[in-house]
Amino acid sequence: MRETVRAGTAKSEQTRALILETALGLFRERGYDGTTMRAIAQRAGVSVGNAYYYFASKEHLVQGFYDRMTEEHRALAVEQLADVADLGERVRIVLTTWLDIAEPYREFAATFFKNAADPSSPLSPFSAESKAARDTAIEMHRYVLTGSKLRYDAEIERLLPELLWLHQLGIVLYWAHDKSPHAERSRRLAERTAGVVAKVARISKYKVVRPLVREADSLLREFLISEPDPGSPPPEPARPPEPEHPRRPVHGPASSG
Amino acid sequence: MRETVRAGTAKSEQTRALILETALGLFRERGYDGTTMRAIAQRAGVSVGNAYYYFASKEHLVQGFYDRMTEEHRALAVEQLADVADLGERVRIVLTTWLDIAEPYREFAATFFKNAADPSSPLSPFSAESKAARDTAIEMHRYVLTGSKLRYDAEIERLLPELLWLHQLGIVLYWAHDKSPHAERSRRLAERTAGVVAKVARISKYKVVRPLVREADSLLREFLISEPDPGSPPPEPARPPEPEHPRRPVHGPASSG
Repeated sequence: MRETVRAGTAKSEQTRALILETALGLFRERGYDGTTMRAIAQRAGVSVGNAYYYFASKEHLVQGFYDRMTEEHRALAVEQLADVADLGERVRIVLTTWLDIAEPYREFAATFFKNAADPSSPLSPFSAESKAARDTAIEMHRYVLTGSKLRYDAEIERLLPELLWLHQLGIVLYWAHDKSPHAERSRRLAERTAGVVAKVARISKYKVVRPLVREADSLLREFLISEPDPGSPPPEPARPPEPEHPRRPVHGPASSG
Repeated sequence: MRETVRAGTAKSEQTRALILETALGLFRERGYDGTTMRAIAQRAGVSVGNAYYYFASKEHLVQGFYDRMTEEHRALAVEQLADVADLGERVRIVLTTWLDIAEPYREFAATFFKNAADPSSPLSPFSAESKAARDTAIEMHRYVLTGSKLRYDAEIERLLPELLWLHQLGIVLYWAHDKSPHAERSRRLAERTAGVVAKVARISKYKVVRPLVREADSLLREFLISEPDPGSPPPEPARPPEPEHPRRPVHGPASSG
């Protein structure tokens, strides 16, 4: 019985991955706006109903792509961060591993970021719908900070990871427009700014700088980040493929873990 | 004789303004990519040759729009800055007067900024082609700084205006996506960040912060701003409508003044 469930889960995961890959291929060919769920289902060889079973909309597909990339990035970065204590070097690693993971998707991502640059779009990294992926990414940056030799007090440790993540988004935006081979310019920018960011982090505890860290964080929360409305029920998540294999719902609020 | 020249100049200026206004109208209606020079000439009631006489390409039209807005903004800001010495207040004025001037063009500008967000586009504020308008805007920010009560040494006075301008571009980007009535959110963001920027400017002379100002400026020059190639001749400017009424060439390098 257990084998059956496992096989079923694996098959579900495969179908889900197939639909996601097919969608990415079509987005690259026809652009995001020019691709329909029907066309995705047709090319993947599944029914339209089945495609919607895994992804409730095209936005969910992009969110799925974003979630998968975030997860791959986290795994690679954590591996390379082991035994590295220097903060500048840690920031450099988290940025360049992202560039490594993202490189195959650069062409698609340029299109995608044109949609995502609008802060009111659900695809924006600042949207309520992106909260789960955003939280994972910010958590990654907290690990970059706390794993370094430097010691911070509680307030800075709480505020800085968001600002480090904001810096990463700047690199991502630059990368989406970068036409240099293998995104060499973005890589150099990441390497150069990693040192600067480490310096900012180092001086952030000084009396003259600390109010600015506080204010930058407050501005980020007031003007860019949208939290899911706590008063309303969470949006209907895409039905998970297997109840036995719980997944974080794509559009749902962050799970408690 | 003098009257004749003046009338001629006025007529040229009128035709130029008519073509520019017509183009902006069509960009709003059909989008930038969907508008041809032929359609602009037709609606303006001038020959295609005449349209090209004033604007060598569609990019020159956007550049013309950008130049005109920069000029209108400068005039309004200088007027409101008179007798204001507080730096935070001065930054607030320069940002909110830009929002005032730009408000009628918000819908068009959102489309336009999708094209302009690409740093390799000639329409980008960082391009070699935008150098003249960029220099005017940076000069405006230098005036904001030097007209305040605060005193800076030569290095900070040289580097800070560019970073103030970069901050303005951030507000412009936010504004291009802002859907709030009368761009209220952008206005509030401008007001809030004006104070933060003034604080950054205030502490930029401290020993711990100064290297960061230096580095931010160096990164801006290496990765974003494109200077016209000094080794090659300047690109052919649009022919000025009247030799007696010299205009800064739209695509040429900055004049010596």
